[in-house]
Amino acid sequence: MKLRGLSLFVALSLAAGQAAAVEFTQAELARATALQKKLVTLDSHLDTPANFERADFDILAAHPDNKLSQVDYPRMVAGALDGGFWAVYTGQTDRSAKAHLEDRDDGLQRLSVIHQLLAAHPDKFEEATTPADAARIKGEGKRIVYISMENASPLVADPSLLSFYYKQGLRLMSTAHFLNNEFADSATDPKGPEWHGLSPAGKQLVQDAQKLGIVIDQSHASDEVFDQLIAMSPVPILLSHSGARAVHDHPRNIDDARLKVLAKHGGVIQMNSYSGYLIDNGASAERKTAEGALMGKYGDWEHMKVADGAQLTADLKALDAKYPVKHATLDDFLEHLEHTLKLIGPEHVGIGMDWDGGGGVEGMEDVSDLPKITAWLLRKGYTEKQIAGIWGGNVLRVMQQAQDWAAKQPK
Amino acid sequence: MKLRGLSLFVALSLAAGQAAAVEFTQAELARATALQKKLVTLDSHLDTPANFERADFDILAAHPDNKLSQVDYPRMVAGALDGGFWAVYTGQTDRSAKAHLEDRDDGLQRLSVIHQLLAAHPDKFEEATTPADAARIKGEGKRIVYISMENASPLVADPSLLSFYYKQGLRLMSTAHFLNNEFADSATDPKGPEWHGLSPAGKQLVQDAQKLGIVIDQSHASDEVFDQLIAMSPVPILLSHSGARAVHDHPRNIDDARLKVLAKHGGVIQMNSYSGYLIDNGASAERKTAEGALMGKYGDWEHMKVADGAQLTADLKALDAKYPVKHATLDDFLEHLEHTLKLIGPEHVGIGMDWDGGGGVEGMEDVSDLPKITAWLLRKGYTEKQIAGIWGGNVLRVMQQAQDWAAKQPK
Repeated sequence: MKLRGLSLFVALSLAAGQAAAVEFTQAELARATALQKKLVTLDSHLDTPANFERADFDILAAHPDNKLSQVDYPRMVAGALDGGFWAVYTGQTDRSAKAHLEDRDDGLQRLSVIHQLLAAHPDKFEEATTPADAARIKGEGKRIVYISMENASPLVADPSLLSFYYKQGLRLMSTAHFLNNEFADSATDPKGPEWHGLSPAGKQLVQDAQKLGIVIDQSHASDEVFDQLIAMSPVPILLSHSGARAVHDHPRNIDDARLKVLAKHGGVIQMNSYSGYLIDNGASAERKTAEGALMGKYGDWEHMKVADGAQLTADLKALDAKYPVKHATLDDFLEHLEHTLKLIGPEHVGIGMDWDGGGGVEGMEDVSDLPKITAWLLRKGYTEKQIAGIWGGNVLRVMQQAQDWAAKQPK
Repeated sequence: MKLRGLSLFVALSLAAGQAAAVEFTQAELARATALQKKLVTLDSHLDTPANFERADFDILAAHPDNKLSQVDYPRMVAGALDGGFWAVYTGQTDRSAKAHLEDRDDGLQRLSVIHQLLAAHPDKFEEATTPADAARIKGEGKRIVYISMENASPLVADPSLLSFYYKQGLRLMSTAHFLNNEFADSATDPKGPEWHGLSPAGKQLVQDAQKLGIVIDQSHASDEVFDQLIAMSPVPILLSHSGARAVHDHPRNIDDARLKVLAKHGGVIQMNSYSGYLIDNGASAERKTAEGALMGKYGDWEHMKVADGAQLTADLKALDAKYPVKHATLDDFLEHLEHTLKLIGPEHVGIGMDWDGGGGVEGMEDVSDLPKITAWLLRKGYTEKQIAGIWGGNVLRVMQQAQDWAAKQPK
């Protein structure tokens, strides 16, 4: 998910300072942090690579209270987050041939800056391509960088570029984003379904990816895409950052029936913390207009400086004072998590909070607060083994199945 | 030029220790080094990025007497070389559709590792994309990294990728390498001309590149390509690493008539130090066989470790003792340089020695010896201004003309 267009305004309404209801003692948080340090902790959807293209972003510096940055090395350490899937995200535009070439270039550029990050900090970050890499890299005291793609539009111009992405480490890929594209229908395109699921090119792309051992990520695609992926996939699929529709009825969330199908098929849902999908914030028309004016002041999100993010945070707080809205809280996030855990069990649930892409709630504004999730899981009685699955074991199991299956296919 | 196939064996015959005839006093070398430190000194064909893909290569370490490495930061400092054009080189294979996709992937990979080098050492290296960048970067105490492409085969599968390369800094590009490809005839394809110059796709590629302000590099392409480039190009062209055919009759060198045409058209030739093009080494059949056996021991050049390079150097010295060959010397290089300077003047000559791609002669085995060239130029009476042109001013003038022309074209 990216902070763009109307969705941007929804997402940006989360900066105020109301206290979340759920609270943890220092002892609970200390125990949770200690446990996370023992486990491999992965978030399956980090949009942080968008920041790698901002000239003033320094991943070794902490960026508290900055609307543009929720993940950096100091806060990963503070929140005991080992790493995750770092996304090659590109926006969707007009689907012209020219736009598809720009998407292609933007995707390759985003892929390159991830490798530049790895090259710049070889003592702190390391690329992972197999499930076994995660524990090894953690053991070496480094953070784990799996590479994913959110929105396959960079492959529309030439799907054969998938081979290059694979060679460069791509191991998780979704089909569409906010809008339909040449591969698949989005869950949120105002025009409704175009392909009623995957297009023929989309089915081919999924098959090609699975033959390479790339896990398919259903997040952002329509329910029909989900149904077709389940029907066609010889391996489990992932929802890298999604919520429960039974808790909040939004097309970006998944209904209980499909959650059960997902689990039965061996798949995993990673719980999202994107406010606009957790709750209805009840923003008034005036609020939306004022937010639009505020964002207009900052211009294109992708080209903002990190330094702008701190001011934007302050401006949004001022906006909240003038036009109050309901802010999703950690309780709201935990409600989605709890519902899903109870429905399909801890072997099929994980964490994918859309950090640096619109995620974060009151009470958990950045990754430094992640031990609250573990504290909550412990309080609810989940075992360390179950928590290990939620924090990474489950998504790595899906990856292992995808890679094992691919290894057996004729080349 | 890359050390491949038969050409490899010719190139590798340069490791022995005979003294070059030309010698310079310490005072001459000190004066030359001091002068280079004042100028912008660029080599227009550095194959060093091939080493970026070797896991044990460290550009901050010196690699003396290593057949795989002639350029690294310490030796650039020692030789007062500010930088140059760092090549995205890919080999040529069977021209199948599959091979072209691999070429595409290899080119993108090589481009990525150049950016990784820049990301890893931002205090020592900086990317340059305009002529003005060179002096600025030198002024900041860093080495200069222009990006070039040797052999356009990575663009055969999809020539529109040129836009991505341009965005990523590509400012100099050649068409073919040892063999003909879909864009142009090589000077050295055993099959002879296929297109009699540029193919239609090649002409289109050249035009597209020139519209972007990318300088076209004629080195490795056939004479017919040269003639067509001169006829069609609204801006001067470059020979990034070539020699004088009047000195040694080899198709990779350029004849006097064409040198005059090149200069009249505003172009520049950068003098190569690839032994096999400087002289005929007179290798016996036995020598060639023994070299083939030796190289077979090391396997694929691209996948050798830097550590293998030191042993290879030693092995080649042993081979020289058993099967002597004539080794090109600094005198031979200077003979090509002098002939060309006298023929077309110092405004049309520069330095492009194919370091890490087969360049280097006895008396100048790596970039640490470059002040010998300046000492020789001073001894011959060239002015500091002329030497500044030879060391970078000329190639930057050609680049400026290309970029100025491109800026005036309709977008």
